[in-house]
Amino acid sequence: MGKIDEMKTSTRVLMGPGPSEVHPRVLRAMATPLIGHLDPEFLGVMDDIKAMTQETLQTKNPLTFVVSAPGSAGMETCLVNLLEPGDEAVICIHGVFGNRMAEIAERCGAKVIKVEAEWGTPIKIEDVERALKNRSPKVLAIVHAETSTGVLQPLEEISRLTKAAGALFVVDAVTSYCGAELKVDEWGIDALYSGTQKCLSAPPGLSPVTFSQAAIDVLESRKTKVQSWFLDLTLVKNYWAGAKRAYHHTAPVSAMYAMREALRIVLEEGLADRFKRHQRNYELLRDGLENMGIKYLVEEKYRLPMLNAVRIPEGVDDTDVRKRLLEKYNIEIGGGLGPFAGKVWRIGLMGESSDANHVNMLLAALKDVM
Amino acid sequence: MGKIDEMKTSTRVLMGPGPSEVHPRVLRAMATPLIGHLDPEFLGVMDDIKAMTQETLQTKNPLTFVVSAPGSAGMETCLVNLLEPGDEAVICIHGVFGNRMAEIAERCGAKVIKVEAEWGTPIKIEDVERALKNRSPKVLAIVHAETSTGVLQPLEEISRLTKAAGALFVVDAVTSYCGAELKVDEWGIDALYSGTQKCLSAPPGLSPVTFSQAAIDVLESRKTKVQSWFLDLTLVKNYWAGAKRAYHHTAPVSAMYAMREALRIVLEEGLADRFKRHQRNYELLRDGLENMGIKYLVEEKYRLPMLNAVRIPEGVDDTDVRKRLLEKYNIEIGGGLGPFAGKVWRIGLMGESSDANHVNMLLAALKDVM
Repeated sequence: MGKIDEMKTSTRVLMGPGPSEVHPRVLRAMATPLIGHLDPEFLGVMDDIKAMTQETLQTKNPLTFVVSAPGSAGMETCLVNLLEPGDEAVICIHGVFGNRMAEIAERCGAKVIKVEAEWGTPIKIEDVERALKNRSPKVLAIVHAETSTGVLQPLEEISRLTKAAGALFVVDAVTSYCGAELKVDEWGIDALYSGTQKCLSAPPGLSPVTFSQAAIDVLESRKTKVQSWFLDLTLVKNYWAGAKRAYHHTAPVSAMYAMREALRIVLEEGLADRFKRHQRNYELLRDGLENMGIKYLVEEKYRLPMLNAVRIPEGVDDTDVRKRLLEKYNIEIGGGLGPFAGKVWRIGLMGESSDANHVNMLLAALKDVM
Repeated sequence: MGKIDEMKTSTRVLMGPGPSEVHPRVLRAMATPLIGHLDPEFLGVMDDIKAMTQETLQTKNPLTFVVSAPGSAGMETCLVNLLEPGDEAVICIHGVFGNRMAEIAERCGAKVIKVEAEWGTPIKIEDVERALKNRSPKVLAIVHAETSTGVLQPLEEISRLTKAAGALFVVDAVTSYCGAELKVDEWGIDALYSGTQKCLSAPPGLSPVTFSQAAIDVLESRKTKVQSWFLDLTLVKNYWAGAKRAYHHTAPVSAMYAMREALRIVLEEGLADRFKRHQRNYELLRDGLENMGIKYLVEEKYRLPMLNAVRIPEGVDDTDVRKRLLEKYNIEIGGGLGPFAGKVWRIGLMGESSDANHVNMLLAALKDVM
């Protein structure tokens, strides 16, 4: 093997579907020399993260913690802990991440009932009603902010229907967390996972998760062991919340330092102001794109402010434009996933990346390269 | 919730069972502003990590990669991908981590045959022979460096027996990797996982893994899906090695920056010199401890140089000594796990923490607080 040199990366403007840009304070916190994962000072760091995660999720759930792996592992955590072989799970699918939930639920041995909507539209209430009729599934799972389509899914009515059917309400909030209203307790969410690399603007690699008491009751009355040892909350919870803070696995100390600082920045700005900023920069981008004749995929009232899915104009080459944006302007935007590959761009305005200067830079660069 | 202040941690001397100390170059690399996980420059970072992981593991396995989660997830990756319900798995247990492998194998639905040794001693060849007699298990799994006991397990003869029985040889090298000889190809290892926070001296949170062609053949001829979607190598391998580098999950970009730099430091020192340094500092510690009348748990020829398990002297209070080491001297050492709690200390000399000054500081501090 030849000698591998010092790492040299370009200074990118991150406007894809995540990771978003990270504040220098977060990078600096992450570079703090390490302490042990069982050091009383580190347990204090965990307590701080837990308290700030509760506040940002608007929940009082005592079982609020961070999975030591990215959002997909958070998704798997929620499903493997709540589902046992033979359980019924209603999974709502309006994009890639709903499909992923169904895939994981099937691997748990659950009987999956799919409620689908056309990609780019939200799940319809009446379709949920129909799926729940004469059924009492263990869970209903749905994506709040579909990163593959840019759809913001209204949750409150579906939560009510789910409760009425006696099921647990499981929500994917990977992309909405810290960028749009998300009220875990008020909306009756029983299990929720997110990621750090979207509107929280910390590096990727961690997944905040919260479980309601109803979800804990289901967890504690399981007949079978959780199929994943690493994600087994009957074990993990003793490290996060146990009286003895028992060792389970070695926590990613540096990533937790970063998350702590990112949460502080969110709370300094305030959730309400942060959501307004995300909305304002979305509007700036929308107006600019529409002036260029670029159309959104999603009807205005269901659009995510932090993830703008737009149709690639006729005759414009997807790969070529994204390559030139990256090479000439150092700007990253995202391509389409699955059936949207080559047809849709996904422009992220998440956390630190939700910024008027970013929007203006991108609009000018797009005009040039298109 | 009250306002949460800037993080203030003490400057610890990390001499426990991991995390070990991290070189300032690694911290600095980790603090590099992020690029996207599908950016061509990031795919280059992954390629560099793969090449250096192959070199440090002494393997040419094309399927050498990094799990986006700590060592326990690496353990689970190896077992869930190779085992299917009903398979026989011989699991060697001489400490906590062998037990954990058995626990995971059972959650895969495997029929587990345990080969046990007294904690503090290695697995005996004749016990392995007996377990394999008239059996053809799918895998035999064993811990190379038992972090809970300080035992270095000889592997070559057991590898030969495993191959003769037609099984795959699975090895936990979490603590030995980059600190003691570990020859994946020469020793016939089929699947191996490690961690970043021990002798590699990168922050915790990632798990390097390698699979031989024989292991890939078993993976590719599975009858059932891998029970974990997040750890499913039939999917993950396309992100690490596929022609198209397909998106699977968002990789922990900053942690990978850190790992890349830590690997460069290992190769600059050279594996042989690094192993000698670990041995030399172990000997310095051993002589100092023996002068104080402190005895090792493990017979000399099976001792790990990077993880020194010693018996707590009669009449000495475990918690009190460790608390005073931490509070007065900022030195962390590890307590005992399981049956060794309160009876054993685990002193880590891993990676950057394997240093003569560290040894001298610890010996002086121990004399004071004991």
